[in-house]
Amino acid sequence: MAEKTIYEIALERHKETVGKFAMVSKMPVTNMQELAVAYTPGVAEPCRVINKNPDDVYTYTSKSNVVAVISDGSAVLGLGNIGAKAAIPVMEGKCCLFKNFAGIDAIPICIETQDTEEIIGIVKNITATLGGINLEDIAAPRCFEIEDRLKAICDIPVFHDDQHGTAVILLSAVINALKVVGKKIGDVKIVLNGAGAAGTAISKMLMLAGAKNIIALDSKGALSDDMDLAPAKLALAKITNPNHEKGRLADVIKGADIFLGTSVGGALKPEMVKTMAPKAIIFAMANPVPEIFPDEAKAAGAMVVGTGRSDFPNQVNNCLGFPGIFRGALDCRATQINDEMQLAAAYALASLIPDAELTPDHIIADSFDKRVVPAVAKAVADAARKTGVARL
Amino acid sequence: MAEKTIYEIALERHKETVGKFAMVSKMPVTNMQELAVAYTPGVAEPCRVINKNPDDVYTYTSKSNVVAVISDGSAVLGLGNIGAKAAIPVMEGKCCLFKNFAGIDAIPICIETQDTEEIIGIVKNITATLGGINLEDIAAPRCFEIEDRLKAICDIPVFHDDQHGTAVILLSAVINALKVVGKKIGDVKIVLNGAGAAGTAISKMLMLAGAKNIIALDSKGALSDDMDLAPAKLALAKITNPNHEKGRLADVIKGADIFLGTSVGGALKPEMVKTMAPKAIIFAMANPVPEIFPDEAKAAGAMVVGTGRSDFPNQVNNCLGFPGIFRGALDCRATQINDEMQLAAAYALASLIPDAELTPDHIIADSFDKRVVPAVAKAVADAARKTGVARL
Repeated sequence: MAEKTIYEIALERHKETVGKFAMVSKMPVTNMQELAVAYTPGVAEPCRVINKNPDDVYTYTSKSNVVAVISDGSAVLGLGNIGAKAAIPVMEGKCCLFKNFAGIDAIPICIETQDTEEIIGIVKNITATLGGINLEDIAAPRCFEIEDRLKAICDIPVFHDDQHGTAVILLSAVINALKVVGKKIGDVKIVLNGAGAAGTAISKMLMLAGAKNIIALDSKGALSDDMDLAPAKLALAKITNPNHEKGRLADVIKGADIFLGTSVGGALKPEMVKTMAPKAIIFAMANPVPEIFPDEAKAAGAMVVGTGRSDFPNQVNNCLGFPGIFRGALDCRATQINDEMQLAAAYALASLIPDAELTPDHIIADSFDKRVVPAVAKAVADAARKTGVARL
Repeated sequence: MAEKTIYEIALERHKETVGKFAMVSKMPVTNMQELAVAYTPGVAEPCRVINKNPDDVYTYTSKSNVVAVISDGSAVLGLGNIGAKAAIPVMEGKCCLFKNFAGIDAIPICIETQDTEEIIGIVKNITATLGGINLEDIAAPRCFEIEDRLKAICDIPVFHDDQHGTAVILLSAVINALKVVGKKIGDVKIVLNGAGAAGTAISKMLMLAGAKNIIALDSKGALSDDMDLAPAKLALAKITNPNHEKGRLADVIKGADIFLGTSVGGALKPEMVKTMAPKAIIFAMANPVPEIFPDEAKAAGAMVVGTGRSDFPNQVNNCLGFPGIFRGALDCRATQINDEMQLAAAYALASLIPDAELTPDHIIADSFDKRVVPAVAKAVADAARKTGVARL
């Protein structure tokens, strides 16, 4: 009998546990006295106190540790627009990661509309019980407007992990990879294949860290602000490609120091790698098939290679980011997760591997390294306090 | 030093536990293999299966056991319109009751708008992860339209517990009280003081059980359909008061067999009780001060007296209703909680006290009687199957 695939195992396990999310009551209610404390009449007192001083909601309710994982199911994993119901296993899974990695009480909310205004209207009105909002698997370009508008309205962090979580981890990987190859971020040419939600956030994060020459490509080629582009792509082109390079990946990759892929499996060919600058760095993050496999990339001359997969070295895994980022934001009761907090997270994550231990195959901490969440959380909270967005 | 009040104790306990709601992950995620099962790549398989067959959402996600406790904070306990944030302790408390009494994974959602259309738009779009919706503490008459419209849209049960939960328990109490006094529900005159959300549901439930003469009063007196009334009250007047009785409580209570109070403390005076029919039944449910205290009522001639309080006999406690009602609805995957299911719940609850054990001070089961939830759940599921609204 053939061995079961991970898909078969996952399906069986999901059926056994009937989903992955459950609730636990933090107070027992087994007799009248306990009922009077947890519910009526005693519960009236915290209600009255919060009514007088709304900030006390953090003291007397679970708000300070609750994050909603919210999706409209429009861009789920590699599955695309599968809608709210089919997206639930991913959102419940993300909630399990929040709990397992960072002790955060996450709840899944799958929205059955893909109308930008409706989504914003829904999310902004259900924040009372929440300490933070993790947007997940919402398609570009809608995700940009939803996140921007919600950030402006909400007094709790709103964070689209597909964009910013990935960007934080990738920046940490680039920081360490550059140390290994002995180059400076301000000097390198970076080619970013895939101009979706993650690509835009990655570009912004790299530039915040000092990158000056990033060329982003969509499936049609390099984006340049002298081209006729859709609004979201034009915005990306405006902040990237300072030399207005044109052409396909095979053209612009020439002489590049870093390739970053958030595109499709097999997009980067060995002959392209051969045209890159010496000591090339490659992060091929397409899943499950990367833009290029590590052995091919190294054979073609790359020095540092990372993927999204756990079976190769240097895994860019979102679990390294969002748990600690939200933990830090919740711990200091931040009103937002700003650029400085994200940069701090990236540097904290990078610094978990001391310079002396850095090698081409060891630039990113292990996903289950227990030091990750506390280190990231502390850096994030410190940055929040420094930038005046912390309430504690 | 004075003993602490229940309010002081409750406030302290809420601070100690920092709220009452937490999340638990039903799958461990402590290594790469577990991550691959709970999240990517394995999670893609349940997503694909649900995408093909949406009903499989009940098999592979937690939906079948999740209920949202949803409020706009507009009519919270005796506190009134305190808004979304101040309402959270009550909603978290209700979630604890769901879990403690019926093993249901309830999550609190407090909506920061009190606009009927917005509330309906929000709730209908967040049902994907939910097996049922418990509306809570929403002011009348808005609560009627919200519930009616959501029932028509949603394919999961929508139940405003303040209305229907209370009505179910009260009907069960009336059924048993009538046995004790030896009267038939079709023969008795019932005076219902308080024409809010609960009052309307109580009237409908009693009539479904055979009551023919109910007179409902608001703070201005008896409602009759030949009067100039607001829409919700006119609707109530149309189905009650067949003899068009007019006047204040002191007038219409004369000769009544049953007084039901969902009004304010002290509203029923002993001299009014003296004008009631022999073997009068009184349920004075105002909290914390009932419309009349049991000793006063009995001294004035009443035979059966119940209140909302646990320190007197015959407590009408919502915990006797909603946990079993939702347990039954979820167990059979009902699309709604219809009248027949509610009637079945009331009769099941009443039947927990055999005729031989019925006394004036023992007509309602104890709130912590372990038989309640299974008995109510079974009756509700059976009724759902009989009326064709069960999917299992």
